[in-house]
Order: sequence, then C-alpha cells, then structure tokens
Amino acid sequence: MSMNSFGHLFRVTTWGESHGPALGATVDGCPPGVPITPDMLQHWLDKRRPGQNKNTTQRQEPDAVKILSGVFEGQSTGTPIQLMIENTDQRSKDYGDISETFRPGHADITYWQKYGIRDYRGGGRSSARETAARVAAGGIAREAIKAIAPNLEITGYMTAMGEMEIDRSRFDWEAIDQNDFWIPDAGAVQEWENYLQALRKSHNSVGGIVEVVARNVPAGIGAPVYGKLDTDLAAAMMSINAVKGVEIGEGMAAARLTGTDNADEIFMGEHGPEYGSNHAGGILGGISTGQDVVVRFAVKPTSSILSPRKSIRKDGTPIEVVTKGRHDPCVGIRAVPVGEAMMACVILDHLLLHRGQVGENRGKIG
Amino acid sequence: MSMNSFGHLFRVTTWGESHGPALGATVDGCPPGVPITPDMLQHWLDKRRPGQNKNTTQRQEPDAVKILSGVFEGQSTGTPIQLMIENTDQRSKDYGDISETFRPGHADITYWQKYGIRDYRGGGRSSARETAARVAAGGIAREAIKAIAPNLEITGYMTAMGEMEIDRSRFDWEAIDQNDFWIPDAGAVQEWENYLQALRKSHNSVGGIVEVVARNVPAGIGAPVYGKLDTDLAAAMMSINAVKGVEIGEGMAAARLTGTDNADEIFMGEHGPEYGSNHAGGILGGISTGQDVVVRFAVKPTSSILSPRKSIRKDGTPIEVVTKGRHDPCVGIRAVPVGEAMMACVILDHLLLHRGQVGENRGKIG
Amino acid sequence: MSMNSFGHLFRVTTWGESHGPALGATVDGCPPGVPITPDMLQHWLDKRRPGQNKNTTQRQEPDAVKILSGVFEGQSTGTPIQLMIENTDQRSKDYGDISETFRPGHADITYWQKYGIRDYRGGGRSSARETAARVAAGGIAREAIKAIAPNLEITGYMTAMGEMEIDRSRFDWEAIDQNDFWIPDAGAVQEWENYLQALRKSHNSVGGIVEVVARNVPAGIGAPVYGKLDTDLAAAMMSINAVKGVEIGEGMAAARLTGTDNADEIFMGEHGPEYGSNHAGGILGGISTGQDVVVRFAVKPTSSILSPRKSIRKDGTPIEVVTKGRHDPCVGIRAVPVGEAMMACVILDHLLLHRGQVGENRGKIG
Amino acid sequence: MSMNSFGHLFRVTTWGESHGPALGATVDGCPPGVPITPDMLQHWLDKRRPGQNKNTTQRQEPDAVKILSGVFEGQSTGTPIQLMIENTDQRSKDYGDISETFRPGHADITYWQKYGIRDYRGGGRSSARETAARVAAGGIAREAIKAIAPNLEITGYMTAMGEMEIDRSRFDWEAIDQNDFWIPDAGAVQEWENYLQALRKSHNSVGGIVEVVARNVPAGIGAPVYGKLDTDLAAAMMSINAVKGVEIGEGMAAARLTGTDNADEIFMGEHGPEYGSNHAGGILGGISTGQDVVVRFAVKPTSSILSPRKSIRKDGTPIEVVTKGRHDPCVGIRAVPVGEAMMACVILDHLLLHRGQVGENRGKIG
Repeated sequence: MSMNSFGHLFRVTTWGESHGPALGATVDGCPPGVPITPDMLQHWLDKRRPGQNKNTTQRQEPDAVKILSGVFEGQSTGTPIQLMIENTDQRSKDYGDISETFRPGHADITYWQKYGIRDYRGGGRSSARETAARVAAGGIAREAIKAIAPNLEITGYMTAMGEMEIDRSRFDWEAIDQNDFWIPDAGAVQEWENYLQALRKSHNSVGGIVEVVARNVPAGIGAPVYGKLDTDLAAAMMSINAVKGVEIGEGMAAARLTGTDNADEIFMGEHGPEYGSNHAGGILGGISTGQDVVVRFAVKPTSSILSPRKSIRKDGTPIEVVTKGRHDPCVGIRAVPVGEAMMACVILDHLLLHRGQVGENRGKIG
Repeated sequence: MSMNSFGHLFRVTTWGESHGPALGATVDGCPPGVPITPDMLQHWLDKRRPGQNKNTTQRQEPDAVKILSGVFEGQSTGTPIQLMIENTDQRSKDYGDISETFRPGHADITYWQKYGIRDYRGGGRSSARETAARVAAGGIAREAIKAIAPNLEITGYMTAMGEMEIDRSRFDWEAIDQNDFWIPDAGAVQEWENYLQALRKSHNSVGGIVEVVARNVPAGIGAPVYGKLDTDLAAAMMSINAVKGVEIGEGMAAARLTGTDNADEIFMGEHGPEYGSNHAGGILGGISTGQDVVVRFAVKPTSSILSPRKSIRKDGTPIEVVTKGRHDPCVGIRAVPVGEAMMACVILDHLLLHRGQVGENRGKIG
Repeated sequence: MSMNSFGHLFRVTTWGESHGPALGATVDGCPPGVPITPDMLQHWLDKRRPGQNKNTTQRQEPDAVKILSGVFEGQSTGTPIQLMIENTDQRSKDYGDISETFRPGHADITYWQKYGIRDYRGGGRSSARETAARVAAGGIAREAIKAIAPNLEITGYMTAMGEMEIDRSRFDWEAIDQNDFWIPDAGAVQEWENYLQALRKSHNSVGGIVEVVARNVPAGIGAPVYGKLDTDLAAAMMSINAVKGVEIGEGMAAARLTGTDNADEIFMGEHGPEYGSNHAGGILGGISTGQDVVVRFAVKPTSSILSPRKSIRKDGTPIEVVTKGRHDPCVGIRAVPVGEAMMACVILDHLLLHRGQVGENRGKIG
Repeated sequence: MSMNSFGHLFRVTTWGESHGPALGATVDGCPPGVPITPDMLQHWLDKRRPGQNKNTTQRQEPDAVKILSGVFEGQSTGTPIQLMIENTDQRSKDYGDISETFRPGHADITYWQKYGIRDYRGGGRSSARETAARVAAGGIAREAIKAIAPNLEITGYMTAMGEMEIDRSRFDWEAIDQNDFWIPDAGAVQEWENYLQALRKSHNSVGGIVEVVARNVPAGIGAPVYGKLDTDLAAAMMSINAVKGVEIGEGMAAARLTGTDNADEIFMGEHGPEYGSNHAGGILGGISTGQDVVVRFAVKPTSSILSPRKSIRKDGTPIEVVTKGRHDPCVGIRAVPVGEAMMACVILDHLLLHRGQVGENRGKIG
C-alpha cells in the first residue's frame, strides 16, 4: 500500500517535488515487448508543458524525460520503468516569502497540519508539476494499450471554462489539437482567449471542465464491486490537483432524468450489441459496454492569484496573500493531457486485469 | 488486491448475491476494544431496509445481521469481523424470464460479456442489495470512530430528486431523520412525495442527489497524491450502484468560479484556523482542513421500470423488456445511509492511517 | 491491505475464531466457470479434519463447509466466494481456566500485549482451526488450476517427525495417501506410530517437517523481485501456525554446497529444456523453470502439552501451566493438507498473474 | 499491487538493472521529521559495496546514493523518497557473449521463458546489484526506527559458509564489524579466509548462512494471520537473490524438538515478562514477544563460476558455460547488510502498522 501509487497490475508511483532536483514515476507492470523511447513520452509531456503560449504559466521547463530502467534496446522488459524529469527552472526565491504563510486554496496549511514540515517551494509535493510524471507514465500506457486493443483512442478536451461552454452541435474532433484550449470548436477559440486574457489582466483565474473519451474500448473490462472501471476512473481523476468533481456519462445530471429517458436501449448490430444512447458513459455495473467511455471532471480556479486574499501565518497572525510566481490563469487547460494520461493508465490496468481475471472475453452474444 | 475490497487499514470486503443464501462483509482492521453488538449495526441497516414505506421497494427483507467473528464479549478483538445477512425473501421466479435477456441500464449484459456466466436472479452481485453489507460495515466504522474522534458526526440527506431540489435557506438538520426522503426541510416532504408517486404510477423512476457531511473531522487526515481523502471518497461513492457523479465541496460548479470567488480565506480563531467559506469541501491537497467534509453524488434513475424498453436476448434477437419485480422508484433515497456508511469507512481508515503515517498531528498553528 | 488476506489476483481472506459461531474464507479472484461444489472442498477438509485417528486430536468437528456466494448452478461466477464452516464441538469450558493465564509457546501473551483483549477460548484467532478455512480455499484453487494447467499436481507429505526421518531411497508416491502420517514409505509407518504414541503417553509432543511438491508447473510463472514465486511460497508457509522454517529446493543445505555441486546443468529435451538436477527447487530468479516446485517447512512441537511448564498470569504472578484440552501430539501431520492448500493458492495466483503480466509464455527455446 | 514493492505502510519499490544507467528505490511511507542525509545511507551502502577486499567481487562501484525527493532541509517530509545510485563501472562487454546463452543457476532462462526479452547484461534485473537499493532503503528505515524505538538494534552476521561454521560459545558481538566475513569470532577469520581463497583458486564458489538479530523490539508488533511479523520476515529474506531457506528462532530444527524442550517458559521480570529460552525467535502467533527477533537465511553458492557447466543456447544447442565477469566467491558475505536492511524495513513497517492498528500497546501485564 502506497499513498503515492495508483493502479492494480499496471502500477504507477509518482515521486518528487516542484523545486527538488527531479521528479518522476516508477512504473511497474508494463508488459514486456512494448516499444518505448523517450521521444514517445516526450510527445505527451510537450503537450502538457508550461510556457508554450500566453494562456499558460510562463515557467520554462523543458520537462525532458529520462528512462533509467526497464527498457532494453527500445522495448519494455516487464521490469519497473523509472522515469525521471529533472527540474531546471527552479526560481525558489519566488517562494521564499511564503515559508511561514499559508496561501488560501493551497495545501500549505494542511501539509503543515499533517506533517509539521513541508517543502514550501512551489507547493512542494502538492504542486501541479507532479502531473508531468503522470503524463510520462500515461505515454507508456498508451503504447502498451496498442498491443492489446489497437484501435483504442483516448482524447481529452475542455467543455467549459468559467462562463465559456462548448456548443456540442459544433463538435469537431479535428479541431481539438489545433488550439491552445483543446476545445472541439475552432470557431470558439478567440472568444475563449479573450475571456481568459481579461481574467488574467484583472489578476484573477478561473475553473474549467475537461472531458476525456476512450473510443473502441473492448466490452467486458472492469470489475464489481469496488474495482469498477468507473470507480478507478473517479479516483484517478479526483487525484489530479485541483479537481473537485468527476462524472461518468450523464454524471450529476442523471439525477434529473427519469428511468425512461435514462435507459440506453440495446439493439443487435452487425458486430455485436449497439445502443440507442450512452447515458451510462460506456460502463454498466463497473464493466465496459463497448461504447465510448466518457469521463468529465471539474478543475477549480488556480488558487495562486495576484489579487490579495486574507490568510494567516504559521504563528496565527493575519496576513494578506498575493501569489506572485508564474501561474496558469486556468489550470484546467493543462489538465487535459493529464486526464488523458489517467484514462490511459486505468484502461491499460483493466485490460491487463481482465486477462488475469478471466483470460479472454467469455460471453458471446448473438 | 481484491476487486471486492475497499480501504487501506480499515478494509471491507463485501460478498454475496441478491438471491443467494446470504451476503455480508468481511471487515478487517477494526481496532480492538470497540463496543460492537448486532443491535448497533441493525440500527443502520433498518434505515436502509426496503419495504418500509411506499416510496421504496416492497420487497420485505428483515436484513438481520449476524456477527460471526472478531467480536468477543461485546468488543472487537482486532481480528476480522465477519458480518452475515441471510437472504430470506428471494422471489426468484420474478427473475426467471430474464435469464436470457439483458435489461437496459443493468449490468446484465456486461457481466455476461465479461464472465460468460451470471447469477441473473435479481441482478446477482450487481444488485443494490450488496449495499446492505456496506451499511453494516459502516456501523462498525462509526463505533470505531467514536474512540478516536468522539465529536465526529456523519449525516446524509437528499438535495435533489428529478425536478425537486432542496431550498438551502430552509436547511434544518433536525428534519432529516423525520421524513422518508431524508431531506432537510419538513415543509417540502409532501411535494416530493406527490412527485414520486406520480412517477411511480406512470411506470417510471427518477434519479437523485445525495449529500453526505462529516462534521468535526480533525485537520490533517488524508494523504498526497493518490491516497487523498477526496480520492478515496470519490472512489467510495462511485462504487455504489447507479452512482454517475461525485463532487467534493463546490464540485462541478467550481469550473464556473473565478479564483477570487473560490478562495476560502483563512482567519485565526480561538481554537485554530477558521475559514471564510468552504468551497473546498473541507479538503486541501487531499488532506482535511478541519472544516466540514462535504461530498455529493448523483444516483441515476432505477433502471428496473414497468415501461417497456427495447433490448436484445442473449442470442441477439430483439425483445421489449418490462421489469416487473419490486423496485424503488428512486434508489437515491436508500443510497443515503449507504453514502453515510462509505463516508464513515473512509474517515475511519484515514484516522487510522494518519496514526500509522505520522503518529499524531504534527504542525501547530498559532 | 488486510493482515488476514493472502494472494494478489487470487486473494483469500480468512476469518473466525476457534470457538466462535463459525470460521471461513472470503475467496476473491477465482476465474468464472470453474466447477465448484461443497463436496469438492469437503474432500480436502476431511483430509485435514481432526478426530480421525489416534495420531491427531480427538476433537470432533464435522468441518462441513457451506458456500454462501459466488457459485451459481455449480460454477464460479467470478465474484467473491464465501466459505463458512460452523463450529459445533466448542467445549469452551476446557479453556475457561486459561483466561487469565499465558500458555508457553502460544500466542496468548502476544495477543494480549498487542490488543489488550483476546478471545482466549481455544486460542481464538491463533488456533490451528483457522487452517480449515485455508484448506477449503485451497480446494477452490485446485479446481481453478485444472482449467489452466490440467496436468499440474500438488502433493504434500511428511519427511521428518522428531527423530523419525524418511528414507528417500524408498520414496513411494502411492504410499502417501495410505497412512496417517502422509509419509511416502508404507514400511516406516509402524515405527512412526510407535514413536508418536510413546511421546503422547509421556505427555509430550514433537515437531515435524512437511514437503510439498508441485509437478508439471509451467515454466515462466513468478516475478521479480518481491513478487517472486518463492517469496510468496515462503510467506504462505510461514503464515501457517507453528511453522518456524521454510526451504525451497536445497533449502538451508545450500549453504554447505559449492557452486559446481549446486549448478543445475541444462540440456535440451524433446519438449524443452531439461535439468540434470533440481537444487533450485524449480525456481530461478523467482520464476518457475518447469521442474518440480519443491517447498519444505518445519512445524514446531504442539505447545499444548500435559507436562507442566512455568508461566505467569496476566497479573504477573507465577503459575504452572498444564494444557488439558484435546491436542495433536504432532501438529505437523495435519499441516500436510494445509501446506498443499497454500501451494495451490500461490500457484493459481501466479498462473493468473502471468496472464495479466504477459498474456502468454513469450520466450521460445529451441 | 506491485511485484517490485515490499511492505505495507513503509513501502519500498526497487527499480533498475545491473548495467542500465542507474538503479534505486522509491521509498514511500517514511514518517516526517526523520533526519536523513546521503551520508547516513552511504554508511550502509559502503558496508555492502563490492571491490573492498579480496573476498568479494572486484567490480568497482562507488555506489553513491543521491536523494532526489522527499527530504527537505535534512529531514523527511512524509512524501516519497527517491534514492538513485548511478551505475558507473558497467563492463558490458563481459556479458556480450551470453546474450544467446543461459547460465546454469541464473535467472537467464526463466526471464526469457517468462518475458521473451531480457536485459542480459550482468543479469539485468536479477543481478545482486538490486540489493544496493534495498540497503539504501534500509538506511532510511534504521533512522525512522530511532524515533519510535530508540534502543532497537539490528545486527547481521554469518554463521556458516560451506564447511565453516561459527562456534556459538565464542560469540562476540564486537568482532562482527572487524572482519570481512561479519563473523562474531575474530579467532576464526583466518580459517574462513583460507577456505574461501582455496575455493576461489579452484574456480569454485560456496554458499553461506546469515543470521540477523533485532534486539529491544517492543512486544506486541506484528499481526495475525497472513500479516505476521515472521511471515513478512520470511518473504523479505526469501526475496533476496540466491536465498533458498529462511528460519525464525529454532527454524528447521524445531522439527526435531519435543514440546517440553521447545516451550519457552515465562517468568515475571522487573520490567515485564521474561523467558527461559528463545526457541520462538521472539515471535509468537506472528507478534513480537519483546525477546530478540532472530532470523536466519541460507544463500546458495554464487552461480557465476569459472568452472565449465553444461547448458544450452536460446536455439537449444548445447554449450559449456564459463562465467568470466567479476564475481563473489560467496555472495552470502555481502548478503549480511542486505539482510539487516530487510529486517529494518520489516520492523519499521510493523511499528507503524501497530500504531495504525491499535494506537499504542494495549495489554498490561503485572
């Protein structure tokens, strides 16, 4: 049992602090024979990397990943893969003045209350930099999935940011990779950008919603009752910094529906069962139906803002906190590749688990 | 690793099917010396028990719990506590005709696709009856919590059901235990009842939202990064049958907020830090702040309805499914004690973990 | 994490005390479609059952196992299998006088020192009765193994008991099931019986060594570095009551060998690699070679003896303890089916793990 | 679940291969506030380090450990501690000719049979170099133990090596650190050295027995039934490369004893219970008695020897293998600090677990 580990057979343990020498992930349970190169992982890290455009933090980190073990001649060997990302742009002095202060909305106070010691530089272990390690591990998961379910695709995008919300009638998969917000609507990008820049200029930040979809997931992965695919997805997403809500399929809105509306009717298609709708988000009883697996999560506004907020020092005296540093006005944006990585890790884990539990899909239909 | 287990140091494994001889929970990690009697657990089981009023299923199950191990002379011994609830009202014939059929919205089809065999009677393992075992285990957690955090209180209630929604300005803790819906507003009960009975008469069902609050939780429990208190709560709630979304504090609505709105400002109170608001739901960086821990989850409408829905048989031929049996028009109602039980289990687990991780709260403020 | 659970994908949690209402095992991870009936399990329980001959305790327990869940129409469903054995011959009064006393060699004193409460009746949780649950679970593992490795055979036998030791030149597999000591030499049985009866009459007991062999284990199961097949076997055997030593292959004697003696030379046989010897006990680097997997463990003499031993009461005052009750003069005998059960559980677990880790044997030779 | 992790609350995951860029350990669950510097860990690594004298391999590795995370201003923070040891003396060419060959007694063949790919350089993941990571992690465990049980001492030594065996009547704790074999008898060192050098010159190797003793372990740590202190110790030691047997207290010899001989009689001492003997090795029912915890394990002879042994190539053709490289004539010697490290990890883990399970020692005596 490790508080810093995630997954069952494919198990990822992240380590490292924002301003220590390095951070990374110990990845255990990757099947052997998966082609893995640093470049493959770098591709996903670059997607998450800060400093790329004016909508994210200006901190410049190359986030170059090194593979220290578990890969031999370009292939996984089945032994633990150690991924290391060295921290290079550690402007610790930005944080020196907060060593005795608790920033509202940050884990400063709770880490202190729990441990009585904290690496206060850049949030230490609670920094969003930890998610770089997840993205690298997710890159491994994506490669390993290919050998088991070659058509499986995992795609994340934003669906809302403060007052902005996507128009699903204009949904365009192709647009997602073409804009800084990962939204599926090229026509909305300018409005989102104007909105965010206005917030930034007013020394504010804003929350967002990320949706991650896995297509072509085989039916029958997942498990009752606590090892459900949706249970693991909920945990995976809620474990990301700043996430406050997780939805599967219809999500919270399921509470408003009636049973007749919510039923995903079943038909026999050419290649197996098909469904008239996907309120379930591709999961019934914790097990995949073969439909798209749809997960959505809300990211709270960045707590580090230039607007002064009331707080206290360690000695209990009051203070007004203004967080200088370099911060994302909407951390939700950079949570997109993180959500994708978590989806990839959970799905690989359940693909492997299914083989261990059952060996192969058992029940035939039609 | 067990797919049917939950928790770290306080570990609950549920077992059993809806229409087998019995179901129950193997509870490991309860500290020694906790007073436990069947009556204490029965109190919570009775709260969840079906057949009590016209708003829930008419299935009559005494749900009498037996303690088979781990309790000696009225006290826990530190060894596994086996809880058994015998199934007595198993009208299996209600289900015989569905052995070859997949009910929309149910796990019938996914269990079949995964395992190639399923106990189809009443949903088998995927039945909501499994939650009786959780409620019994939660009763043990509640007793064990008393020895560690005597003032800690866990209370669940509904906040929405289809078109119904509570008016938070009329919130009344006392009302919760006085009505069939566990809503905190006695004045709204009649309207909720009329609404639900109309749905039932039209052979329909509806979803609902349950909120569970833990008050007087000590600051400093929880852990980074995957063993967060909110991660474990999200998993716990999502693992309950029919749950499609989980929120902590502000939840999905956090996406709409700005950083200045969302910041819970900190002040020094007489007994420690106090907060100007609780958008965070009592958790920062996965660790409790000492504020109320607030979790909310959405339960989809009961899938078993008398209105015909299109589906297929195992052989792929089409069929219209009408689920007779005896079903709750809103399973969300009976999810209230289940959500409370899961909250109790998670909080006890983290109280115990904290002692193992740190020994005692370390960081002093003021 | 449960202190009372064992295994990774095939996970067994035992529960229950010697003199409570029942004891049993929660078995999670059995693959679906395995034929399981109470009779199949009873076969192995009867092998372990006390009261069968004068060489074991005269306590009469039918040890009838009930299957409460996870089996439908004679087949496993993939959900948890709950096995319950009711305690019927609970002569608790035999134990009443020891509630304030610590018996030498028993866990009385350590349970008290750890928990401050103990079910003193018959050793409570530390009673060898707990092993009945293991044997039942092992019966399930044996059935599940058949579907994956049909020729795999697991056989246990004694190799030593006090001054008695088998003559390996007279080893006879057929003899094992034909005598009360499970020794592979029919000609030695009378001598073993005379020896044990003399010890019993002198109010004494004696230790023993059990060897368990698994034949036709596929090459390639197990894992580096802490999840080794031999690591799990060592843990499994050491977790059995009264076991003080575990050996794989050459065991402790490996310390006396030179490298040239110890090397198991490799040859190419008709169906794959063959070995000139099996000092390794069928495991290299934690992974099976395809040779016989050979495990040996020592069981200490029964601590409950009629000869008086010096001890103290809970209040610290001295006492002479004579354990009346009904006890085995050599618990090693009844440890044979327990060792077999543990071997079956570990091997099934690693067969399942291998599928989850790799999918199929990968490396071809020749 | 990770196959490369060990421990419950104090959880160590090792990673890395013999000839990759680095190896190390991810250490999770170290309590906060423990003073940790690289020097503290280096002390133990130097004890294990090769190339120090003619009795161990001449491979020169500085084995310098770097701390990449989890330590802030010289103290543990409660977050994962990443320990990295870079490989510097990788003479891979020594191994090139074995890429297609299986060395007898090595994991070459089983890794290949399991994974179909292996890093053959120096044994890859199955190399004894992996134990350097354990020793580093054990150094952290030792420091963390000090804060909980300040008088606890862990000491390992050899008791046998081939035909050599210590004379317990000459046991001298002070001598252990003064000789290359870690034997508790200065007078025997020359004989051991002559014996080993003769073996080396004859191109042979030999096995050994290591005993590790923990003194001043508090009574009451450990747990029934699978999480026993001795179960975890057996697993810990058996997981070390080349270990073939593990004993607690009397060990395998318990099989020869009678109940009257084996009983450790109990007396009331000034500070609590005392025992007339320690056949149990300090553990009853899986829980510590407060006596010395005594573990012994056998290490097989080094399989890499200059004497030719018969084997096969990957293609099945026969070959005679002579392992050149630089190897220890008795790996048992360098297993001493490894055994100590494993003991430290297990004991810290159970000290932490005890707090989580019980909170404090509960049962008072006298």
